[in-house]
Amino acid sequence: MSDPSRASIDVEVRYFETDAMGVVHHANYLVWFELARTRLCADSGRHYADIEADGYRLVNTRVEVVYRRPARYGETCRVACWIDTIGSRSLGFSYEVSRDGQVLVTGSTEHLWIESESGRPCRMPEPYRVPFLRLAGQEP
Amino acid sequence: MSDPSRASIDVEVRYFETDAMGVVHHANYLVWFELARTRLCADSGRHYADIEADGYRLVNTRVEVVYRRPARYGETCRVACWIDTIGSRSLGFSYEVSRDGQVLVTGSTEHLWIESESGRPCRMPEPYRVPFLRLAGQEP
Amino acid sequence: MSDPSRASIDVEVRYFETDAMGVVHHANYLVWFELARTRLCADSGRHYADIEADGYRLVNTRVEVVYRRPARYGETCRVACWIDTIGSRSLGFSYEVSRDGQVLVTGSTEHLWIESESGRPCRMPEPYRVPFLRLAGQEP
Amino acid sequence: MSDPSRASIDVEVRYFETDAMGVVHHANYLVWFELARTRLCADSGRHYADIEADGYRLVNTRVEVVYRRPARYGETCRVACWIDTIGSRSLGFSYEVSRDGQVLVTGSTEHLWIESESGRPCRMPEPYRVPFLRLAGQEP
Repeated sequence: MSDPSRASIDVEVRYFETDAMGVVHHANYLVWFELARTRLCADSGRHYADIEADGYRLVNTRVEVVYRRPARYGETCRVACWIDTIGSRSLGFSYEVSRDGQVLVTGSTEHLWIESESGRPCRMPEPYRVPFLRLAGQEP
Repeated sequence: MSDPSRASIDVEVRYFETDAMGVVHHANYLVWFELARTRLCADSGRHYADIEADGYRLVNTRVEVVYRRPARYGETCRVACWIDTIGSRSLGFSYEVSRDGQVLVTGSTEHLWIESESGRPCRMPEPYRVPFLRLAGQEP
Repeated sequence: MSDPSRASIDVEVRYFETDAMGVVHHANYLVWFELARTRLCADSGRHYADIEADGYRLVNTRVEVVYRRPARYGETCRVACWIDTIGSRSLGFSYEVSRDGQVLVTGSTEHLWIESESGRPCRMPEPYRVPFLRLAGQEP
Repeated sequence: MSDPSRASIDVEVRYFETDAMGVVHHANYLVWFELARTRLCADSGRHYADIEADGYRLVNTRVEVVYRRPARYGETCRVACWIDTIGSRSLGFSYEVSRDGQVLVTGSTEHLWIESESGRPCRMPEPYRVPFLRLAGQEP
């Protein structure tokens, strides 16, 4: 086992994402997490859009976010994402949003593999097993 | 021909919808327009969700919005919607957002009937013809 | 001590809130939570907009959401909110989103009282102490 | 007079931006327009955040969008923005969203210069006159 792979993206704060307090509204960090998760999946050679095309979904079952410092319009933030748990039917991701090396927000999400047609939970589909285990730093 | 039917809904400003200027961000009015349009369609006896279940879509082809005065958190606005043009394959809606009788924003949208399966434009589906002509104030 | 007061609001799913899975995107529940929290504060006789006008902010420091079942366009959901913890400088709220009595999503948020001018944490401002203790079911 | 300067940015479609039709919801293009406008202003040497810090606002007074083809999750779009009219108190911008050279969406926005303190329209502030005339391709 080695450290999990991290995807890092730079996100420019959108005016639309600010609120009347003059800072990024707290709901938008979930959207940034998703962007970083998309990049991490793409890094494994499988875009999340492929997962859907293959007949599966990774449904969000839990989200936790801790807010330390706000981000503002005019700033660009770095969002890192990595896998922290792999279950037989589930995946857990962790996130860190920072600006100039200072941590603003951290979080985690849990997801369940679902077969689109039946809408029922399923085992991690075979074509994703090795790529995701590699991302997680676990030798398959 | 008579006046078109108007649907009116009350929308409470969401904190999420405000921006760093302390007012509702201009993109959100399109979302409010859509809420009022949903209500107008429902008033005809056909929810927009039925249109999709029946295998059709009403795709947005054009939007125009004029902003006169801002709305703020803590306020509730009234959004009115009515049909202003019916073509053989298209529909046009108009909108007015007001607060305490004062007009804040006006707008219009144009839509095309699309058959979901083929993705191609089509004539207004028969089950919608009479209800929509009635909404438009045109005797069928 | 008695049970905390609950505010309940009905939220009609907006088309804008759905995603390509055909369900409400998970980030939107934070926006619904905020709407219900706004109503709960208003029920205490103090609108959240007053808090800002008085020179204070209730800043989000933590969010947790558990997703059980999805909501879809065409549906109306009930969102309940109540206070579950009151600290000297903090407030904790809990939430439940349901549809026809079936629980879809639950969650909690933690907030810190901030003095707007200094940007620093402060004790719960005196004018809010009694109303919020009453909301929490704690006799002041 | 020469051609106006164009700012071009690449925008990766966010899952959050898709709707139940499986495409980018039409309201999000206003947000993309704003991102490209931010970049164009930054290219002039003046970030839009500076305008606010200097005590001014560029308030949206009108928006028009024409939708030709949809964008989908998994795609990256190019958004171009340029100034098309400069009035003594107003600015007009045009936009084009494309993917692989194919135009998806076009639009325009109109803005009014506002003095933040008074909330009243004002002439284009002196420090912005030359940079914006240059962006517009008009020799100052």
